[in-house]
Amino acid sequence: MNHLDATAIAEAVRSGTTTAAAVAEHFLGRIERHEPAIQAFASFDPQVVRQQTQDAEGPLAGIPVGIKDIFDTVDHPTEFYSPIYQGNCPSRDAHVVALLRQAGAVIMGKTHTTEFAYMHTGPTRNPHDLSRTPGSSSAGSAAGMAAGFFPLALGTQTAGSLLKPAAYCGLYAFKPSLGLVSLEGVKPLAPSFDTVGWYGRSVRDLERLAQVLIPGFPTVEPVERPLNLGFYRTTRWQDVDPVVAKAIEQAITRLASRGHQISEVTLPEAFAGVFDDHQLINDCEGARSLAKEFQAHPELLSDSTLALFERAKGTTWEQESAAKARLMKRASLLTKICRPFDGVLSVSCGMLAPIGLASTGPSDFIKFWGAFGWPQMNIPLRCGEGELPVGLQLVGVFRSDARLLRVAQTLAQLLAVELSAPGIEPGRSKKLEA
Amino acid sequence: MNHLDATAIAEAVRSGTTTAAAVAEHFLGRIERHEPAIQAFASFDPQVVRQQTQDAEGPLAGIPVGIKDIFDTVDHPTEFYSPIYQGNCPSRDAHVVALLRQAGAVIMGKTHTTEFAYMHTGPTRNPHDLSRTPGSSSAGSAAGMAAGFFPLALGTQTAGSLLKPAAYCGLYAFKPSLGLVSLEGVKPLAPSFDTVGWYGRSVRDLERLAQVLIPGFPTVEPVERPLNLGFYRTTRWQDVDPVVAKAIEQAITRLASRGHQISEVTLPEAFAGVFDDHQLINDCEGARSLAKEFQAHPELLSDSTLALFERAKGTTWEQESAAKARLMKRASLLTKICRPFDGVLSVSCGMLAPIGLASTGPSDFIKFWGAFGWPQMNIPLRCGEGELPVGLQLVGVFRSDARLLRVAQTLAQLLAVELSAPGIEPGRSKKLEA
Repeated sequence: MNHLDATAIAEAVRSGTTTAAAVAEHFLGRIERHEPAIQAFASFDPQVVRQQTQDAEGPLAGIPVGIKDIFDTVDHPTEFYSPIYQGNCPSRDAHVVALLRQAGAVIMGKTHTTEFAYMHTGPTRNPHDLSRTPGSSSAGSAAGMAAGFFPLALGTQTAGSLLKPAAYCGLYAFKPSLGLVSLEGVKPLAPSFDTVGWYGRSVRDLERLAQVLIPGFPTVEPVERPLNLGFYRTTRWQDVDPVVAKAIEQAITRLASRGHQISEVTLPEAFAGVFDDHQLINDCEGARSLAKEFQAHPELLSDSTLALFERAKGTTWEQESAAKARLMKRASLLTKICRPFDGVLSVSCGMLAPIGLASTGPSDFIKFWGAFGWPQMNIPLRCGEGELPVGLQLVGVFRSDARLLRVAQTLAQLLAVELSAPGIEPGRSKKLEA
Repeated sequence: MNHLDATAIAEAVRSGTTTAAAVAEHFLGRIERHEPAIQAFASFDPQVVRQQTQDAEGPLAGIPVGIKDIFDTVDHPTEFYSPIYQGNCPSRDAHVVALLRQAGAVIMGKTHTTEFAYMHTGPTRNPHDLSRTPGSSSAGSAAGMAAGFFPLALGTQTAGSLLKPAAYCGLYAFKPSLGLVSLEGVKPLAPSFDTVGWYGRSVRDLERLAQVLIPGFPTVEPVERPLNLGFYRTTRWQDVDPVVAKAIEQAITRLASRGHQISEVTLPEAFAGVFDDHQLINDCEGARSLAKEFQAHPELLSDSTLALFERAKGTTWEQESAAKARLMKRASLLTKICRPFDGVLSVSCGMLAPIGLASTGPSDFIKFWGAFGWPQMNIPLRCGEGELPVGLQLVGVFRSDARLLRVAQTLAQLLAVELSAPGIEPGRSKKLEA
């Protein structure tokens, strides 16, 4: 089971090679052994897991899925890592959780998030190195994936919350175009950017989940010809750790050596402002989204969330409107520049997973593209023994989601050497077993 | 109390001229007398109302508010007018409901919506003529306002759901720019358009609510100079009932006679496609938003909702992407054309409230502007005795919300002859008293 992706496990359940109950027991065993070290779960109950394995039917029948604790669930509390919502038990599942259940998936529990999916971090550790952060905010979903607690998991992204943990934990990740996946029952932060995304052990896992969570998601043909890819460093490439830069450049070289065309993209100077515009809008929208919590319980909010309110207070309506208008204008130019490519490559994070759990590093290279609502993916690199993962980012223009997954399939075949769940590989689980 | 707007009632409570309890009893009396004829409420309990009048503090202290039954509430079931959700009791209030309570408002109950705020209508009747529809989907909030059950109410709009009932029931209505008000705890339909909006008895009521529901909403100076207004008929003006057209043109003439500049706007031919693009996106996004209900309980969905799924099934991903792209392109041109104006006038609905409760007429003139996420308002016209209301629509470019309210203030002073709650006026309540 450690060497199978979710798609293969689903096939095994469907064909009778294994059962949903046996699948659940495998993953429950992993959790029992390693959860004390990883602390991926905000809420977990093996009995609730076992109850779901009976009569599971559908494309994800019997497949365990981890759910970030900002999605409402009927069988687990939903607390957003905030004391304000201790014991909160929603009456309905979030839209995507309902769709997962209808597809036969087994909800394994709620995974740790930062407070309201913003910055204040929880207790979760990186399975690749327990002294390091798994990234945020989808920390528990990513660490649980890397530790082999479930082969699929839900996260969300507003700035870097899905791809950053994917980069630090060595996971395949897919963040669809803005607005494609319903946010019903998901705690909002900044509606201009908030998007549901997910982790899988392979690109085809990501696509299988897209078919379930985006009803009507198109099936497109694999790309057989050499790819025509862009590569954009952004104006902050100088911040990239040389180890990370080397891994990205090696991947680019490898792709080029196999006949794929890679063209370095340069953008007008105005694009250097994207990072700040994203932050400004995130602050203002975040302050509005969390206004009721701030008004009722400021004493229960973390310092980093309170700082967001301070920054929002210092920002005028006109400044926010101008930032929104600039992003819209740039989106149209960026689309023109990037549309000819099958996809554009970038780095997901400029650094390896930082040591310590309190801060998780910047999300600049992720939010640059997220600012435009484009689909984004992480392809894990450097999963050799003893190495920390590096994430290659692949993005496409708005609503090019299906094609992007096909392109990622080709890239993954060329670049990836193992399944995207390093903690479960014999050579990689040493730190966990220790 | 019948002749006071919410702002005046709040002042009276604040100054001690009356009490929150006395205010509640006044409106409870109205409800007791007239609810059997109007059927505005999906859920109503006078005891729950009375409990809230103690210790009410804040800018809306003691002000009764009607809540459309697609907002989650902790003290009333939230059923979306769907048997699928019978008895559904959320664990948290929707964001805006929480903000209302924090501002001291008294939640009067849940008002009837169409099924999932789409087309299948409920039992609510129009206080101006009980044989007519109040419009949809914010039917109960609008009819309850017109019947004097509460002086403020929440609705939502995806196509015409806020302004159409406002036009049919003779109410001031404000739908802010897309994304300004958090949708947490509101049932989604089409995220490209879904917006929370509200009804008030005056423009200043609408602004007071904006200050509560959009934290940080700017205060702008009144416009003292003559206004520079656009007037756009759309390509569907030939569908407008002559009675409605006459009322709109009389209003335009009156504004011009007071020195305001009104320029007729013409748009390139491509804008004739906005109506169909809106519908196509609404269908596709609606089918995704309601996928879980369709998969689990197709037998409990109405024919009109099932028809949405049929149309979505017949629409390709590429068609939807193209429609989105066309709207984005037109938004930029429309902004250039409309930005010089203080606001653009239009008609809210081309017809008077239709007879019968089953269908509520088209929303073309509303969704034309809603397609771009712009702020929209209804200013009630023709509220003389025995006349059915007509709605003058006022729109502004994206995020011009605060200025638009100021412009509406000027227009309302010139055009409106009475408070926007006609059912409570002595001359107008005849049908109710009968």
